[in-house]
Amino acid sequence: MLTIALDAMGGDHAPRAEVEGAVLAARQLGVKVILVGRKELLIEELRKHEDYADLPLEVQHASERVTMEDSTQAVRTKADSSLKVASRLVRDGRAQGLVSAGNTGAVMATAKIVQGVVPGVTRPALAGVFPTIKGSPMVAVDVGANVDCSPRMLAQFAVMGEIYSRFILRRPHPRVGILSIGAEEHKGNELTRAAWPLLKSLNLNFIGNVEGQDIYSGDVDVIVCDGFIGNVALKVSEGVADMVKWLLKESLEATLSGRIGYLMSRTAFHELKKRLDYSEYGGAPLLGVRGVCIICHGRSNAKAIRNAIRVAAEFSEGKVNQRIEDELKQAASEKIVAKAD
Amino acid sequence: MLTIALDAMGGDHAPRAEVEGAVLAARQLGVKVILVGRKELLIEELRKHEDYADLPLEVQHASERVTMEDSTQAVRTKADSSLKVASRLVRDGRAQGLVSAGNTGAVMATAKIVQGVVPGVTRPALAGVFPTIKGSPMVAVDVGANVDCSPRMLAQFAVMGEIYSRFILRRPHPRVGILSIGAEEHKGNELTRAAWPLLKSLNLNFIGNVEGQDIYSGDVDVIVCDGFIGNVALKVSEGVADMVKWLLKESLEATLSGRIGYLMSRTAFHELKKRLDYSEYGGAPLLGVRGVCIICHGRSNAKAIRNAIRVAAEFSEGKVNQRIEDELKQAASEKIVAKAD
Repeated sequence: MLTIALDAMGGDHAPRAEVEGAVLAARQLGVKVILVGRKELLIEELRKHEDYADLPLEVQHASERVTMEDSTQAVRTKADSSLKVASRLVRDGRAQGLVSAGNTGAVMATAKIVQGVVPGVTRPALAGVFPTIKGSPMVAVDVGANVDCSPRMLAQFAVMGEIYSRFILRRPHPRVGILSIGAEEHKGNELTRAAWPLLKSLNLNFIGNVEGQDIYSGDVDVIVCDGFIGNVALKVSEGVADMVKWLLKESLEATLSGRIGYLMSRTAFHELKKRLDYSEYGGAPLLGVRGVCIICHGRSNAKAIRNAIRVAAEFSEGKVNQRIEDELKQAASEKIVAKAD
Repeated sequence: MLTIALDAMGGDHAPRAEVEGAVLAARQLGVKVILVGRKELLIEELRKHEDYADLPLEVQHASERVTMEDSTQAVRTKADSSLKVASRLVRDGRAQGLVSAGNTGAVMATAKIVQGVVPGVTRPALAGVFPTIKGSPMVAVDVGANVDCSPRMLAQFAVMGEIYSRFILRRPHPRVGILSIGAEEHKGNELTRAAWPLLKSLNLNFIGNVEGQDIYSGDVDVIVCDGFIGNVALKVSEGVADMVKWLLKESLEATLSGRIGYLMSRTAFHELKKRLDYSEYGGAPLLGVRGVCIICHGRSNAKAIRNAIRVAAEFSEGKVNQRIEDELKQAASEKIVAKAD
């Protein structure tokens, strides 16, 4: 049975949301989950779920916990943290994937160091899945793991993102683009201009530069960018969504007919919220680490945790890492993305 | 009387929208407008407005026109383009500012070369004004003029943006931040980390790093970033707004009560659209060029043109350039943003 190690002490609602998510996954997905954290706390939470003893669940004790405030140094010294113990379970082959809603920087650093990197990958990258107007999901790589990137790293992100799109998001022939500020090859900054010929030479459906609005247009399936700009794009999106929500509420409450309209369209708003809810997609995978590592939002609820466990299982079953390794080996033999720089 | 030179052949709806905008400005704002473009076309459009002969309007003939497709080279060779002739009117002191809804790259290059740069400014930068949840406008510099920036350029953007916020957007004590991916000083890329101490040492209300969502939060009044990331942030915003609009429409049309709710809240939606309408703010100023240069969206309507003329006039009356020159001289004497690099 496929086994996922869950850092049960990571998120803002840990360990309640984590335990509930693990129970849902074990109950609904046929995946075994090893809950890692303070044993007494986890058992206490598990007891709230009647059928827990019959489910494929296991508890692995870990005495420490990484907080959102911990520095990289602090993370390193906490040898018995739930995060590190969970990551070691993957390294040692006791689990096929890691899921955590903890401190993103700490999860990335730990997975990279403990689990190691897929051969051929210079640096692991965080993938973010976005909803689009056409209904198809779009994946952006990198959304925050590497702030300063080389052109070769962007080419590797393209290879990893394309495989993720094809085998996890089930896009048949993913279109890959570089996030830039104009469609033409010469439009962009030093990085995007240098990355263009590399992506062009890869065995990909490369469609050239795309722009910010294309994240949501559905006209591209994989967008590559450095982690700084990817993270800004993600945060800007949150800001705009909040802005629109606020404006709508304010506008609708200003008149009586608007208030009535608002009440009558509540179901629609609820549906809208669900569609915009990133937790539906089950967290952001850190592409390029051995085993699997899915990073959830700190405020993940049980459903988000469950979905992340599902993605981790699909990632493992889809042999995503093996495919990444093979593709990069192929590209390296053609001298495209061979050397780290 | 304050005079603005309008490139009347620039936008997608030129010269109709331009002429109508100029008539509105001349009628309502007490500003003189010199319309630059093919004389016969402009006269024909002007004749549609009964009172045009009584308004402070003038037509300056220019035989050529820069298109959206023209390369930088093509722009250079069109010596008698409406854009270049309008820019020369500012250089020669016949007008105090330039307004154009033409090819953004061409307008920036022309204004920089023909009008020249304010002493102390390394490179002019495009300012974008965003609405916020708190109702106050926020200005981001640069949103597209310079893709690769130095830390000193970001410091100059801060000085220029702060003055724009104070004297045009009427923010009493503008808070200035660097667009980054975390609040702490060490979070960010090479550029933001190097810019931090420079901004810190300036005579500004510097609040440190801000994140993508802060563009709309109303917690910061001036955000500096390189033109690549600023442009992506702008385009992402457009993408999200379209996405939300589409989702809402789809959700609301799915049920009968939703459809009724939608109809009843139409006024509210109309109001919302107006609030999100960037044309209300009257185009993006290119900060740091001599005279004034306001760049409008290609699809600007008459109202947007009128508002851009208003902003150009306020910019000139507010002595924004003189203030920028003085502040940069002051900073240079303190050896902060002295040297170009």
